[in-house]
Amino acid sequence: MAKSVPLPPTRQKPWPDAGDPRVDALVTDVIGRVADKWTMLILEALAEHEHLRFTHIAKLVPGISQKMLTQTLRQMERDGLVDRTVHAVIPPRVDYRLTDLGETLGAAFCSVWLWAEANLERIETARATFDSRAAI
Amino acid sequence: MAKSVPLPPTRQKPWPDAGDPRVDALVTDVIGRVADKWTMLILEALAEHEHLRFTHIAKLVPGISQKMLTQTLRQMERDGLVDRTVHAVIPPRVDYRLTDLGETLGAAFCSVWLWAEANLERIETARATFDSRAAI
Repeated sequence: MAKSVPLPPTRQKPWPDAGDPRVDALVTDVIGRVADKWTMLILEALAEHEHLRFTHIAKLVPGISQKMLTQTLRQMERDGLVDRTVHAVIPPRVDYRLTDLGETLGAAFCSVWLWAEANLERIETARATFDSRAAI
Repeated sequence: MAKSVPLPPTRQKPWPDAGDPRVDALVTDVIGRVADKWTMLILEALAEHEHLRFTHIAKLVPGISQKMLTQTLRQMERDGLVDRTVHAVIPPRVDYRLTDLGETLGAAFCSVWLWAEANLERIETARATFDSRAAI
């Protein structure tokens, strides 16, 4: 580690800066929790349907394992993004829906979604260029 | 799997909908790549400094392993988010900087960052409530 080399100066940036290191650490923790592929895809599935059963979410998020879906839903419930309702019917029915907080995170992620849609072609081109260079 | 149960109807939603399943699949793939804690934290480090060496990024992204940093930077380079420049000096110096595409992704993620800052307290409260319920 080149610890003696100072960091380049910071610059004008599009990122908010809370300034308080404790707040920064908490934000980093929260970002680490929500900036996750599965969280984002489950958010999208629940944003598209008012409420969903576990098996429905599994259908709408292709590739997710039952274990990862259980774990991600539980973390989302713990973070207050998702409400889980158990209906006392036979057989028991469990519904998931976004909370108001989950809805606002969905709206915030929307700009990332739009970015991905708008830049698909540039990303594909960048990958092809990278792969052709790597193949030389 | 309750395959016979139809999905609830879709509703008015804040998410864009490309409609084309091929585009949807590509967007999901891209989201899966970029909606990642380490990608987001590296984006932030590079957004704050014009260019950074590997060891600097490692300092600014606490908790990342050397292997994960190497792998994430390589994927970000492949996706066209990061430029890697090798300077022919002794010892050789390698700099990383955001491309224009990386800058726009940083700006899109900014709303998620602001969401995390604005909702820290609600998330902490939700977690405490969940944990106290779980402890009963």
